[in-house]
Amino acid sequence: MHIYDLPTPAVVIDITALRKNIASMADVHPGRRLRPHVKAHKSSGIAAEQEAAGHSSFTCATPREILGLIDAHVGNDFLLANEVLDPHRLSALAEAQDEALITVAIDSPETLAAAHRAGIRSVIIDVNVGLPRCGIAPDKAGALADAARANGMDVRGVMGYEGHLMMVTDRDEKKSRVHDAMTLLAQAHQAVGGDIVSAGGTGTYDMFAGTTVNEVQAGSYALMDTQYAELGHPFVQAMWVVGTVVSKNDKWSVIDVGLKSLGMDHGNPTIKDHSVWFCSDEHTTFSPSEGTPQPIIGERVFVTPSHIDPTMAMHEVAYVANEYGEVIAQWPIDLRGW
Amino acid sequence: MHIYDLPTPAVVIDITALRKNIASMADVHPGRRLRPHVKAHKSSGIAAEQEAAGHSSFTCATPREILGLIDAHVGNDFLLANEVLDPHRLSALAEAQDEALITVAIDSPETLAAAHRAGIRSVIIDVNVGLPRCGIAPDKAGALADAARANGMDVRGVMGYEGHLMMVTDRDEKKSRVHDAMTLLAQAHQAVGGDIVSAGGTGTYDMFAGTTVNEVQAGSYALMDTQYAELGHPFVQAMWVVGTVVSKNDKWSVIDVGLKSLGMDHGNPTIKDHSVWFCSDEHTTFSPSEGTPQPIIGERVFVTPSHIDPTMAMHEVAYVANEYGEVIAQWPIDLRGW
Repeated sequence: MHIYDLPTPAVVIDITALRKNIASMADVHPGRRLRPHVKAHKSSGIAAEQEAAGHSSFTCATPREILGLIDAHVGNDFLLANEVLDPHRLSALAEAQDEALITVAIDSPETLAAAHRAGIRSVIIDVNVGLPRCGIAPDKAGALADAARANGMDVRGVMGYEGHLMMVTDRDEKKSRVHDAMTLLAQAHQAVGGDIVSAGGTGTYDMFAGTTVNEVQAGSYALMDTQYAELGHPFVQAMWVVGTVVSKNDKWSVIDVGLKSLGMDHGNPTIKDHSVWFCSDEHTTFSPSEGTPQPIIGERVFVTPSHIDPTMAMHEVAYVANEYGEVIAQWPIDLRGW
Repeated sequence: MHIYDLPTPAVVIDITALRKNIASMADVHPGRRLRPHVKAHKSSGIAAEQEAAGHSSFTCATPREILGLIDAHVGNDFLLANEVLDPHRLSALAEAQDEALITVAIDSPETLAAAHRAGIRSVIIDVNVGLPRCGIAPDKAGALADAARANGMDVRGVMGYEGHLMMVTDRDEKKSRVHDAMTLLAQAHQAVGGDIVSAGGTGTYDMFAGTTVNEVQAGSYALMDTQYAELGHPFVQAMWVVGTVVSKNDKWSVIDVGLKSLGMDHGNPTIKDHSVWFCSDEHTTFSPSEGTPQPIIGERVFVTPSHIDPTMAMHEVAYVANEYGEVIAQWPIDLRGW
């Protein structure tokens, strides 16, 4: 099958670009220095590519991501980098602890108690390093670790996500602010102990020299999107949502890719050599730039999402294509949900 | 089970509010005067409530919505109000024509040819009435209908979606512009023939007196969202995404409802008596208004999405609750996908 024969809207992955991105990141952070975040793609097929490049430890945002990777026999060391209180989901993770090393983030006595009650053996202390989201204050991290150890749990270290710095555009300012955030994380680590100091994302992956960070949680680098592309990193676009022109006139064209198949929180998607007018539930209206001919009805159009993570989560399958546009694999987006 | 015991993020539907909305709309547009649009909820459970209120004809945006309703034995007259070229999907619809009346929108010789090749018997001419999206120019509608009839197809009438007018805030201006759009549709209908003149949405449902429109395609009225709520219609919020507070400090709280469980194209969701700071993939950070206490860790929080349609499409199931918060049914969101 060729990508031009796919039912649309279709997630298409360029295997050459994907492998280039994975190799570029593995050069900088080989093996366990990278803990790829699977929330960015939610596909065990992509995780298997990351494992083939040397990474066997993964970051996950939901219990289902961990259980799905175990089912798919990909990876052996999973970090739930998210606070979860649900006793059923935590118990399901606890039951899988003989199959893989599972570590659960905690940032409060309540999340500690929930993990302990479910029988979770290993935790990591999630430390707030400036992003107004999860994470305990750095000066309280040690006491939480002590409480976990008093419950007989293994405290593997600390994590801290500097998500508020991903899109800082000035590189020197960014580096300086990342170092300040990682100094907070290092202080917390002193009090917590353990082997792991985990942080980072695609926007900051090359900012950790001179810090104590020993694993980076980047995810979006594998597929990329238009927002991260602005940062000028070596990663290239490897995923598109392909649509079919279903309607047109002399002013605009319409494809069957709409806001139900695109993450919209970063704004509209882009279409090369075209101007996107707006997205509706099932459609995007667009027109060609000057000098570009209008597509014909039935023509396939490649749409570049502005935010990769939610886009992947909206689709059931990713079609993997080679340089000739031949579909060489179908990877289920099997890690969706919670 | 109580809604406070659900695994989160969870779509919760207030059955009383849902039935009130459905009854309010059925009062204005009883029976076949309303052709409820299922793209707004993608659940055969909600469609069954609409059928119980007297509506047996439905509007659908995707072949899967039609086939899913047929599988669920809900409705008997389905309009695919969207242009589709995919031969496999059109053939699947054609095969279902003995089980229900299926009518497919066409707006070009290409979409006509695709429907004809697949064996589709009934079509409707989709007419552009001002929204820059699908639909043939009004003055070309008659010729397309003639071509369809020359192919032996039944032309059931016209549809035209005035989506560009849904959010016009001045009622007089809106009514005047809707009437102008419907005059275009009536002119096209003169040339096309057939029994159906289909148009409208929740934003314009009460604007068709004095027009030739004989069925309204509203969908969002059943569940509502914060954008439509601004219009002051009699419909009330009937759906929320319920989250659990998983992290907090003295400045903000974090729930496990993020942009992967919320349609974000209309902006951030709202939380009653609280201010939403921002949404991440799996989280929303928020803080209480003055005088409102901070929630505690583990507390459930009701999030009102800004756009209902894509929100529903992100979830696998809707939990239906009565006035006591007891979960009385689980409706699969079974019409997702294409």
